[in-house]
Amino acid sequence: MNTHETAFRVRYGEVDQMGFMYYGNYCLYYEMARAEMIRGFDYTYADLEKDGIVMPVVKVQSKYLRPALYDQLITIKTTIKNLDRLPFLSFHHDFYNEDKELIHRGEVTLIFFDPKTQKKVMPNERMTEILNTGFDK
Amino acid sequence: MNTHETAFRVRYGEVDQMGFMYYGNYCLYYEMARAEMIRGFDYTYADLEKDGIVMPVVKVQSKYLRPALYDQLITIKTTIKNLDRLPFLSFHHDFYNEDKELIHRGEVTLIFFDPKTQKKVMPNERMTEILNTGFDK
Amino acid sequence: MNTHETAFRVRYGEVDQMGFMYYGNYCLYYEMARAEMIRGFDYTYADLEKDGIVMPVVKVQSKYLRPALYDQLITIKTTIKNLDRLPFLSFHHDFYNEDKELIHRGEVTLIFFDPKTQKKVMPNERMTEILNTGFDK
Amino acid sequence: MNTHETAFRVRYGEVDQMGFMYYGNYCLYYEMARAEMIRGFDYTYADLEKDGIVMPVVKVQSKYLRPALYDQLITIKTTIKNLDRLPFLSFHHDFYNEDKELIHRGEVTLIFFDPKTQKKVMPNERMTEILNTGFDK
Repeated sequence: MNTHETAFRVRYGEVDQMGFMYYGNYCLYYEMARAEMIRGFDYTYADLEKDGIVMPVVKVQSKYLRPALYDQLITIKTTIKNLDRLPFLSFHHDFYNEDKELIHRGEVTLIFFDPKTQKKVMPNERMTEILNTGFDK
Repeated sequence: MNTHETAFRVRYGEVDQMGFMYYGNYCLYYEMARAEMIRGFDYTYADLEKDGIVMPVVKVQSKYLRPALYDQLITIKTTIKNLDRLPFLSFHHDFYNEDKELIHRGEVTLIFFDPKTQKKVMPNERMTEILNTGFDK
Repeated sequence: MNTHETAFRVRYGEVDQMGFMYYGNYCLYYEMARAEMIRGFDYTYADLEKDGIVMPVVKVQSKYLRPALYDQLITIKTTIKNLDRLPFLSFHHDFYNEDKELIHRGEVTLIFFDPKTQKKVMPNERMTEILNTGFDK
Repeated sequence: MNTHETAFRVRYGEVDQMGFMYYGNYCLYYEMARAEMIRGFDYTYADLEKDGIVMPVVKVQSKYLRPALYDQLITIKTTIKNLDRLPFLSFHHDFYNEDKELIHRGEVTLIFFDPKTQKKVMPNERMTEILNTGFDK
């Protein structure tokens, strides 16, 4: 299974008064992780939008195992799931801290959607190619 | 079952370029809803912290059914679940738009936690009273 | 001078590990304050956009005098400034805590802008009416 | 004059329905830029806090010249100003888009502050060394 890795450093404004990264701030990093994964195939989510397809989120499931603390360097390992459920697509994200402890798991399900017709669509050719090449079914 | 209602208006900075409230911004409103529910019992989450207990989030499950659009007045109906699983506690939130359509469901599970001992604890007397009075088991 | 008042309660996710509302979170409240001020005249920023005008921010000046703390009820007093500099328009916001202490001042300058022509424009009739009625020059 | 450079990519959740990075989101990037600048001297803001000093923001001045768009790679050039006004310290940030156009300028003034005494303090030895070495007065 193809796994993509990206990293970020927790910022002060993302941490709450417990000193933990606020639970709502993970979503921006799920987004960053899936965007960088697609970019790794020389395509971007921005390209997809220009090509007439958007991907609204339909479901999120998050488990908070340990806190992410201010200034920690967090690594996200991302895999794609549910390729057999297109036009729904799920990204699974595992977050690790600097001690390589698994601190968080998030799964985001999106749908390929045509804003003109306001209907769900199958991914375009370029995206299908990426999904076929890069990932085991 | 005791249900608490609160409302908010979607702000410009919360909406993305699809015109939808960004999927990560719901968490702040889950927080607002549960804080207001507790405040309805003349206690606050801030009081709980002063009384030596914090409530980190351990799990979130979100379903995005329809978008929340800029400037819409959104109503959140909140109920408490899983009172038999203390020190874990779950808040269930249903979001409705101005046409009374259900647009979003979120369930947030938190744990009562003592930051001094770094261990989970049962809720204090005041909070237990609220949970017993206000909610069916 | 016409002053508009609105209030909000500081949320957990908006506070940093100093226990202060993060300095970047004031901008969403400036936005809320100016949106509510316009709404007070039975018009909305959403209407203005439907009428073909947007208002991007061109300048912000903020002074942080005292911290806003978690769960505090903060009142914002908003006035309009620089009506003689249209199509630029400035909103001045004074933030007060529950002890009526002035804790923050922000001034946001926006420009009336036509996204079709990509040029600045004078406010439309409805907005001009509001500005003339509601405010001293 | 010592200039530090850092870069970031605009995320979907940071862009509003005009397609522009929301004006309130720049503050997190000012923070990132000043944190990375300090890190370049083998010290961190996190270290400073452990050493008993915090740096609350007292003033922000921002000019929005052109929008930052979704997925653009933005470069921030940061310099330090007002070294003669310690314990106040200012960071000046110029934001450039991929076409090397200056799109935004921000200046953030912070104060060295001792949370125990609740009073302003001069920077500690390590920080003073950095300020003396790295920057022209």
